[in-house]
Amino acid sequence: MSIVVVTPNPAIDVTYRVDRQTIGTTQRVREVRRMPGGKGLNVARVLEDIGSPTVSVLPLGGAAGSWVQQRLDALGLAARIVPIADETRSTVTVVDDIDHPTMFGEPGPHVTPAEWQQLTDVISATAASAALVVISGSLPPAASPELVAGWVEKARLSGARTIVDVSGPALLAAAAAQASVVKPNRDELLDATGASSEAEGARALLARGAGAVVVSRGSAGICAYLPDGRLELAAVPGVTGNPTGAGDAATAGLALALSTDLGIDEALRQANALGAAAVLRPVAGEIHLAAYQRFLTELPLPAKENP
Amino acid sequence: MSIVVVTPNPAIDVTYRVDRQTIGTTQRVREVRRMPGGKGLNVARVLEDIGSPTVSVLPLGGAAGSWVQQRLDALGLAARIVPIADETRSTVTVVDDIDHPTMFGEPGPHVTPAEWQQLTDVISATAASAALVVISGSLPPAASPELVAGWVEKARLSGARTIVDVSGPALLAAAAAQASVVKPNRDELLDATGASSEAEGARALLARGAGAVVVSRGSAGICAYLPDGRLELAAVPGVTGNPTGAGDAATAGLALALSTDLGIDEALRQANALGAAAVLRPVAGEIHLAAYQRFLTELPLPAKENP
Repeated sequence: MSIVVVTPNPAIDVTYRVDRQTIGTTQRVREVRRMPGGKGLNVARVLEDIGSPTVSVLPLGGAAGSWVQQRLDALGLAARIVPIADETRSTVTVVDDIDHPTMFGEPGPHVTPAEWQQLTDVISATAASAALVVISGSLPPAASPELVAGWVEKARLSGARTIVDVSGPALLAAAAAQASVVKPNRDELLDATGASSEAEGARALLARGAGAVVVSRGSAGICAYLPDGRLELAAVPGVTGNPTGAGDAATAGLALALSTDLGIDEALRQANALGAAAVLRPVAGEIHLAAYQRFLTELPLPAKENP
Repeated sequence: MSIVVVTPNPAIDVTYRVDRQTIGTTQRVREVRRMPGGKGLNVARVLEDIGSPTVSVLPLGGAAGSWVQQRLDALGLAARIVPIADETRSTVTVVDDIDHPTMFGEPGPHVTPAEWQQLTDVISATAASAALVVISGSLPPAASPELVAGWVEKARLSGARTIVDVSGPALLAAAAAQASVVKPNRDELLDATGASSEAEGARALLARGAGAVVVSRGSAGICAYLPDGRLELAAVPGVTGNPTGAGDAATAGLALALSTDLGIDEALRQANALGAAAVLRPVAGEIHLAAYQRFLTELPLPAKENP
């Protein structure tokens, strides 16, 4: 069965390489790269890479939307696209060999209530033949956090589990709608719940109704909080590279395990192995496949600690 | 008769407004504006605004090219578009209320020899029923400067005058091809000719074959160098605002005068009035129409000085 991956606010991710970033000048762009972006699409690409079939669900509009659609076709990603009247957003990341990258994120299109209804209908229809629905990435501006709750409920009614990687009020709404797994990073968790520690924040989301709270901590590993305990797994040691997209690869690992009825312990192992394999690649949505397989042989299964 | 306006390297001109430009961070884009860009398209929009019909000739490709085409239709700009396989470029300008704008310019698409040939054929065909051909803006990377010379020659063979606003080797090629007017700014003139003064640079272009060299100096006015003398006209005094696109508006003023057989003295008056009227508008390609008409009543005709 396919995994349904919802990307509520897809983008063209543009990267400009310049000689040296400066403010207030005209800079010649030496190299331009464009990729279909949005966290859900990164998750879907990693899942496809490791042989797990996906169906992406996303709104697309305007010339930028047509471009994304063409590139999804070229990448061989199956997609159910909801056409919208407004223009799909872009992000622009400026890189040089000296400073940290600078990222400019457009907020995204206006999506009408009728267009959101159509997206919800497509999620219902595709979830009916899926074991798992992944919802990942930001919402466009002015979109209600309750949309995410609605998608989680539709998936549950269709008998599919859910993994939700969103932030702010939408994260709270997903927990209240009883998402199987919510997957914030530490900052998102503290920000949305107002908690002062990771454990306190996770307990707050579990209390609202989330089945599990998985917190990815990058090089500090990953931790799953369950109603009856927690599991923690250290990151693959000694992996350096580009962390962009590592969190999305970790989500793909959780999705692989949960869609095939592997336990949460194996889900953490898959998440860590794929997260580390993504760090070895410069581009979000790509992994080092051989490294992933090697990491899997090296990583232990985490044991559950009772609280 | 229409004025033919060639834009060899059109763009989507994107403007991002952010709270404060910083390097190495993620910045939320508060406001996004997209306009069809490239200097020739700015010239055409100003000409249409003052009631002078144009036909734009330009290569367009990919999703960005489709977007530009749709916007030209929406703006009511007549265009003869040469489809290309590669993607039309974008420029991104980042603005805040504190620092100067930062501009990122993509180099532009690869245009094949067959595509250039098609563009040249379209210039020939449209020039046959035009009094004037304007060629304005950069060439895509790897495009030969000799292309510009070819377009100037085709226009001349069709009985049309030419105004050429290009830089570098293409400026030298346009002069050698006997463009009626070349219109560099001071920096472009010194850069292309290697001269150490404006007058020396202008004489070099006249010696190569240009009919006239018009140098726009922004708030320092405009000067036309002819084989038998020069004319100089001070800028409209006391105009402050956004100089972006003022040079293109000035080109439109030259084009209006030359397409209707007004003399070079009236051309400079039109150029200065439109340049100043563009400074009053924040967006390239737009002018303050009432101010333009007022400036025309105020500006004197320049007198020719013999060298």
